Amino acid sequence: MVITQKDLQECSVHLSSDELAVEIIDQTQLPNRTLILSLTTAKEIYDAIKSLAVRGAPAIGICAGYGMYVLAAGKAAGAVTDSKELLAQLEKDGAYLISSRPTAVNLSWAVKRMLKVLSQHTDLPVKEAVDLLKAEAQAIHREDIEMCYRIAENGLSLVKPGDGILTHCNAGPLATSKYGTATGPVFLAKERGIELKVFSDETRPLLQGARLTSYELQKAGVDVTLICDNMASLVMKNGWVQACFVGCDRIAANGDFANKIGTSGVAILAKHYGIPFYTLGPRSTIDMDCPTGADIPIELRDPEEIKNMWYKEPMALPEVKCYNPSFDVTDHELLTAIVTDKGVVYPPFDVNLKKIMEME
Amino acid sequence: MVITQKDLQECSVHLSSDELAVEIIDQTQLPNRTLILSLTTAKEIYDAIKSLAVRGAPAIGICAGYGMYVLAAGKAAGAVTDSKELLAQLEKDGAYLISSRPTAVNLSWAVKRMLKVLSQHTDLPVKEAVDLLKAEAQAIHREDIEMCYRIAENGLSLVKPGDGILTHCNAGPLATSKYGTATGPVFLAKERGIELKVFSDETRPLLQGARLTSYELQKAGVDVTLICDNMASLVMKNGWVQACFVGCDRIAANGDFANKIGTSGVAILAKHYGIPFYTLGPRSTIDMDCPTGADIPIELRDPEEIKNMWYKEPMALPEVKCYNPSFDVTDHELLTAIVTDKGVVYPPFDVNLKKIMEME
Repeated sequence: MVITQKDLQECSVHLSSDELAVEIIDQTQLPNRTLILSLTTAKEIYDAIKSLAVRGAPAIGICAGYGMYVLAAGKAAGAVTDSKELLAQLEKDGAYLISSRPTAVNLSWAVKRMLKVLSQHTDLPVKEAVDLLKAEAQAIHREDIEMCYRIAENGLSLVKPGDGILTHCNAGPLATSKYGTATGPVFLAKERGIELKVFSDETRPLLQGARLTSYELQKAGVDVTLICDNMASLVMKNGWVQACFVGCDRIAANGDFANKIGTSGVAILAKHYGIPFYTLGPRSTIDMDCPTGADIPIELRDPEEIKNMWYKEPMALPEVKCYNPSFDVTDHELLTAIVTDKGVVYPPFDVNLKKIMEME
Repeated sequence: MVITQKDLQECSVHLSSDELAVEIIDQTQLPNRTLILSLTTAKEIYDAIKSLAVRGAPAIGICAGYGMYVLAAGKAAGAVTDSKELLAQLEKDGAYLISSRPTAVNLSWAVKRMLKVLSQHTDLPVKEAVDLLKAEAQAIHREDIEMCYRIAENGLSLVKPGDGILTHCNAGPLATSKYGTATGPVFLAKERGIELKVFSDETRPLLQGARLTSYELQKAGVDVTLICDNMASLVMKNGWVQACFVGCDRIAANGDFANKIGTSGVAILAKHYGIPFYTLGPRSTIDMDCPTGADIPIELRDPEEIKNMWYKEPMALPEVKCYNPSFDVTDHELLTAIVTDKGVVYPPFDVNLKKIMEME
């Protein structure tokens, strides 16, 4: 595929046209305000990541890549005239950026990748070193688009025009680059003039399906219908869903996978109604060191997200206990296939995941 | 069972101690304010029903019964000195009350039952006729407590101390009289010193589980945990649920039943995890003229309930389509048993529902 400058510019995280800032869509303001933030300082980039103005592992990585470049360019235009001095200063900035979300693997990965390029070229004049950083940030971005494109193509091969797709949470362009993972096939289909219908679970308690997925599909002109999570059973029973596409946070060696809370419920419903159920994500999501889903820890979050957040006033008594897990694990027996950038993996997953990991 | 005056007074709908008003807990203010409304005029009763300050079919029936008595007593204390004249005036009031929620079967049933008593005794002095109306309203109330008690006893026989119960929506004391239907066994268990744990689905979009079910269980000292609807799968997988208890709006002759949207999803999850799934309701919910669930129409409601209601600001783009069904139908094959006031009905439902309908 050919990725043009226009492709890069149209992503929700991109370099400004004067190349002096990282521009992002502020995801905390969606769907009510499409606000572009222009980030030029380390503090601004840190705050954008920490406040979830930019969220989604790949999007954070791309933001960090461009961020490191913008900071370097600013220093080079100012007092820094030596590449070694530039590296020393960027290492501090990088550590600071990483501290904004310490558990975000893509964030530290992107920062380190940028620093590595610079450390290998401290013999170059500052201006040339900065040009290399720009190229590296763009490479991170291009690679993500390409990976999403491949996942999208592989996913699209599994459905036919007019099909209804049910998705849960958000794994679209806002969280990645151009296509997204779970909803990548839908955006690619739209690009090719193929119409698919999407049912978007609102995804309580953080409502990513309502706020983000239905937003980005609607803006792209896709036929999207928002439903409450508990309506998925009826939508499937009505015969409106031909495939379920969901994202994944981690895939264990046996095919069990962790994803946003509620995913396992969707998988059980799909099995009951005889609907294929797919998870879509890059090969890097597969963790061969994690034998089964039982080895994936589940983060518990603040009860206030259920009882109070978003609302005009609390929706439950303050003293009522809540159970608020952020993820659940879907058993591999409920999974039709795993759609990756390297191909579609079918059962037996323990055997076939090994094969895909060994591919070039 | 013995139903005392105290039992009647403690219900969320009851006659005031001076017998001049119907007192109700305003359900629209829960869980943030436990506000008692004192209703003395036809307009006040009409408004309370229309605004859902009182909701739940049995609770509305009880409210209408007491309401008709209070209106009659007021007229008798005033200018009305003849029982025929009283009947003529009450017929107008009754028609007005029924118009507050024309589809509420229990409302018109209770109004007509009150009018029938009066129409059979227009030869009596006004004061005596009014006393008969009071007795009839109390009979409606007592009968509901007794019916809920029997459902609760039958349901309680299906679980053991320490069990975890998952419930969906609200079918507790607020919607009925003393025990409720779906959560009746839990309240009865508490009364008997038996501890059960309850997981209450919040029940989007109207959040009856968060606002009402977790409220009334918490106030009764029951160990209740509020979850989002999409967390039920994980809670079941964790081994925390030994039975699901849900209410029902209509049961077809083959055992299919309609209940709050999301119920069928809970039933499918329960079957997957091997957990018994019960619906609880009075025998009057069984509609032998309705052959299967396919014959039950599903009401579609306002998309704003999903996108905007409750929230500080909208949670989806205004132009995003929503599918907002109020009920779904659960297939009888997913149902372990139907718990009624006349006994527990097991499969084959087509045969055994007939038997229970023929019982005295």
